[in-house]
Amino acid sequence: MMKKKPKKGLLIVNTGDGKGKTTAALGVLFRAWGRDMRVCMFQFLKHENASFGENKAARKLGIEITPIGDGFTWISRDINKSVARAQHGWELAKQRISSGDYDIIILDEFTYLLHYGWLNTNDVIVWLRENKPPMLHLIITGRYAPDTLIEFADLVTEMRVVKHPFKEQGIRAQAGIEY
Amino acid sequence: MMKKKPKKGLLIVNTGDGKGKTTAALGVLFRAWGRDMRVCMFQFLKHENASFGENKAARKLGIEITPIGDGFTWISRDINKSVARAQHGWELAKQRISSGDYDIIILDEFTYLLHYGWLNTNDVIVWLRENKPPMLHLIITGRYAPDTLIEFADLVTEMRVVKHPFKEQGIRAQAGIEY
Repeated sequence: MMKKKPKKGLLIVNTGDGKGKTTAALGVLFRAWGRDMRVCMFQFLKHENASFGENKAARKLGIEITPIGDGFTWISRDINKSVARAQHGWELAKQRISSGDYDIIILDEFTYLLHYGWLNTNDVIVWLRENKPPMLHLIITGRYAPDTLIEFADLVTEMRVVKHPFKEQGIRAQAGIEY
Repeated sequence: MMKKKPKKGLLIVNTGDGKGKTTAALGVLFRAWGRDMRVCMFQFLKHENASFGENKAARKLGIEITPIGDGFTWISRDINKSVARAQHGWELAKQRISSGDYDIIILDEFTYLLHYGWLNTNDVIVWLRENKPPMLHLIITGRYAPDTLIEFADLVTEMRVVKHPFKEQGIRAQAGIEY
């Protein structure tokens, strides 16, 4: 007799230098919203006043997308302020994750906080192991996903650049497609 | 003086064996919908009665997502019927593409039609070169994107499997995340 495969909340990581890390997470959010699942997203490096395409769409639908960064913070002059803000964002995310109120939570561009050492990767993993509800799907995006995070994750995809027009043809980034 | 970089409708290809090819396209659609752009999607290998998360979401939003396949057709017993249906889908897509009524059109899992020879890749490229409106963004997804298509495309991303739970841990595909 075939054993029925178990369901499980997955830790999903979209990493790599290519396009599609954030949009793939947004696509999952869109799909899950279609199934009336409870979803939310934190944008760790978008300015708190961000109003990109996804923010506009989310507002129209009543989906909670929370930008908590202060722009591209790693080039900020006041690095301490950026670090404090990122850590504050993680505290907010922890509340949502442990609340049990969501089916899918996206931590967009969260890997940078780990890569730049603003958060300790092992501390994050230990916290998730103890506090993530078993059925919650958590999606983490961003370049430079640390090896220990990849090891801990269930599903990891690398988005690899094969061809990029902004580098190769001098085409500029465009609304709707890029942001 | 800096020359302003031009805007251009891009041909985007999401390929590779990993997750995120379709969801990244759906994320672009979601983002663009947030900006009131005109979007639509053809699903070449989804059954015409498909009602996956993205179909449900699209219906709620009034976004046109058209499934035109008959399921996983390459294992269909009546291959001629599958081929005819795929070719009919391409004719529908051509009408939409050349209409000028859209900002972004997604041809989901379209690469399989090329890979399996149901459509001639060079014919498709010649048609697109002559008929795609210059500002239209066209997104093609699916494994096995032919080299000539990659050559013709502006932006190509390979979604590469780093870790996959359905293979490695025996976890089954789950609503909202996978479909």
